[in-house]
Amino acid sequence: MRATMIHAPRDIRLEQAPDPAVLAPTDAVVRVVRSCICGSDLWPYRGVNPTDEPHPIGHEYVGVVEKVGSDVATVSVGQFVVGGFTYSDNTCEICREGMHSACEQVGYYGSPDRQGRPVGGCQAELLRVPLADGTLVATPERPSEELLPSLLTLSDVMATGWHAAVSAGVRDGGTVAVVGDGAVGLCAVLAARELGASRIIAMSRHASRQEVARAFGATDVVEERGDEGAERVRELTGGHGAHHVLECVGTKDSMAQAFASARPGGQVGFVGVPHGGEAPMERMFRKNVSLAGGMAPVRRYLPDLLGRVLSGAIDPGRVFDLTLPLDQVAEGYRAMDERRAIKVLLEP
Amino acid sequence: MRATMIHAPRDIRLEQAPDPAVLAPTDAVVRVVRSCICGSDLWPYRGVNPTDEPHPIGHEYVGVVEKVGSDVATVSVGQFVVGGFTYSDNTCEICREGMHSACEQVGYYGSPDRQGRPVGGCQAELLRVPLADGTLVATPERPSEELLPSLLTLSDVMATGWHAAVSAGVRDGGTVAVVGDGAVGLCAVLAARELGASRIIAMSRHASRQEVARAFGATDVVEERGDEGAERVRELTGGHGAHHVLECVGTKDSMAQAFASARPGGQVGFVGVPHGGEAPMERMFRKNVSLAGGMAPVRRYLPDLLGRVLSGAIDPGRVFDLTLPLDQVAEGYRAMDERRAIKVLLEP
Repeated sequence: MRATMIHAPRDIRLEQAPDPAVLAPTDAVVRVVRSCICGSDLWPYRGVNPTDEPHPIGHEYVGVVEKVGSDVATVSVGQFVVGGFTYSDNTCEICREGMHSACEQVGYYGSPDRQGRPVGGCQAELLRVPLADGTLVATPERPSEELLPSLLTLSDVMATGWHAAVSAGVRDGGTVAVVGDGAVGLCAVLAARELGASRIIAMSRHASRQEVARAFGATDVVEERGDEGAERVRELTGGHGAHHVLECVGTKDSMAQAFASARPGGQVGFVGVPHGGEAPMERMFRKNVSLAGGMAPVRRYLPDLLGRVLSGAIDPGRVFDLTLPLDQVAEGYRAMDERRAIKVLLEP
Repeated sequence: MRATMIHAPRDIRLEQAPDPAVLAPTDAVVRVVRSCICGSDLWPYRGVNPTDEPHPIGHEYVGVVEKVGSDVATVSVGQFVVGGFTYSDNTCEICREGMHSACEQVGYYGSPDRQGRPVGGCQAELLRVPLADGTLVATPERPSEELLPSLLTLSDVMATGWHAAVSAGVRDGGTVAVVGDGAVGLCAVLAARELGASRIIAMSRHASRQEVARAFGATDVVEERGDEGAERVRELTGGHGAHHVLECVGTKDSMAQAFASARPGGQVGFVGVPHGGEAPMERMFRKNVSLAGGMAPVRRYLPDLLGRVLSGAIDPGRVFDLTLPLDQVAEGYRAMDERRAIKVLLEP
């Protein structure tokens, strides 16, 4: 099969690789129907995170089950499935508490499993999915082509935006500010709408992203950044700041902007992988601003979000604004790196 | 009247001061029936916080209303009242959302009000209480002498321990670890019990404090500190750590111990004034450990906690293990500084 490898910063190659096999009785092998490139894939692409040796990359996928191990009970060959960006057993104490991304057996695509057996990346034709029962959710039937982009977002960005909103405690009537207008930030806008926010302020200075944000439910757009942006948020929220701030970037500046935009008693939900941001302890203490979030427990949200996509309630697939065949994956990385695309969908 | 002043680190003096007067129509003047010394008073006492010039000190009190301004409607002369360690209007948007410690008009005892008028400290015979309607809660009748210590704790430490538990989301069946065995930590144990925790681990190495902790509902005591302490908490909680960790100290070490004791998806509630502690962003992200809390909105909790004390459901006054007359206030500071006393009650 063909699989995407990262060799070094800005060196993405589609290569021939051995077809993955069932290596454990709890495995499935999935034929990838759609994959995509994530904002977090840009951290190694840009050299912010080191790449010590070439390895497979990509962690978002929808596909069709091609093989299952003898212990797999909840999905079967031929079913269309969605899985999150981590795999998990869905049975341990931590999973039962809803925190699948910290499952006792959690693992990541593109790195060996705990027994040292290979697990590939998702920007590939085939994928070994360990702990298939705990990871995959099947759709009732094969979904239509038009639904594939939205289903694919459930693998990461929509579930991650949802986690930002849940972590920030978004509820009926609250005011929300979203820091970050990447795919996760836009999905966070959609999540805030679904969770009943009365006012949703998208912080974005890109016309095309603003448009998606408004389509997803943003009531206001703030183009300013930093303290100036936070000041605008305060103006829009009666002088106090937003009840719920969704931090969807992970940089030092975005984290500072998020805290500055939160009102006393406000909640910051953060889902951008931290890269230098800090929690301002004194402001948090003085103003009772909280910080919650982290790596999204996608599996917890999947059944609910799957229902919302299949019913047409949400259409997060709109975050994809460039579709490329898998053999142009390197161009996909370039387009996202140069911000020519919000998010790139890959077809096999 | 006599009032306690701090002149410099370790220089506490009871001095003659002018009787406070009603300076605004929303003021009350309260005759202090009991006051006390707070762990946070030790920060300036020890020179950790600077004392640039002599100023009144003390922020916890119960008393009897002696005078009221013309706009005061909810308390009247002769009533017994409890007030929190900040004053607030209880009507602004932030108060209505329950975050009175960040009230639009919030103020602190021992510092001038926003108009520059004097507000004394509570370790004194008389106290000017600005925004009396928004700050004071009267008891139905004059409480008995035995209830005074418990009522006094509502002014700060019991409400602050309660806020730690609420901020950490303590609920029925959760496991709780409490970092800090000062008065606030002990009250946090009591709060966790009241909020239904199934297991409450008090982290303490002092026999007398362990005893109070057990009386307040601690099911386990861990004497170890730091990583070793966190390891013991994990052993007691199925290997994962506590669901809810209540950080009641505020130092770098205590904050680290709190985060190390929290399970994936766990919640740290912090109420110790931050002195060098940091939020470990990467661990928070990877394990979805949240941080909430800050300066307690005492006024929000006062009616509920007052009911619990008057009904005998809670007896937080047990945290006082030394009672002194006001003219020995300096000795009270020494006793707490040297950890000869958990908390010192002052009688006029």
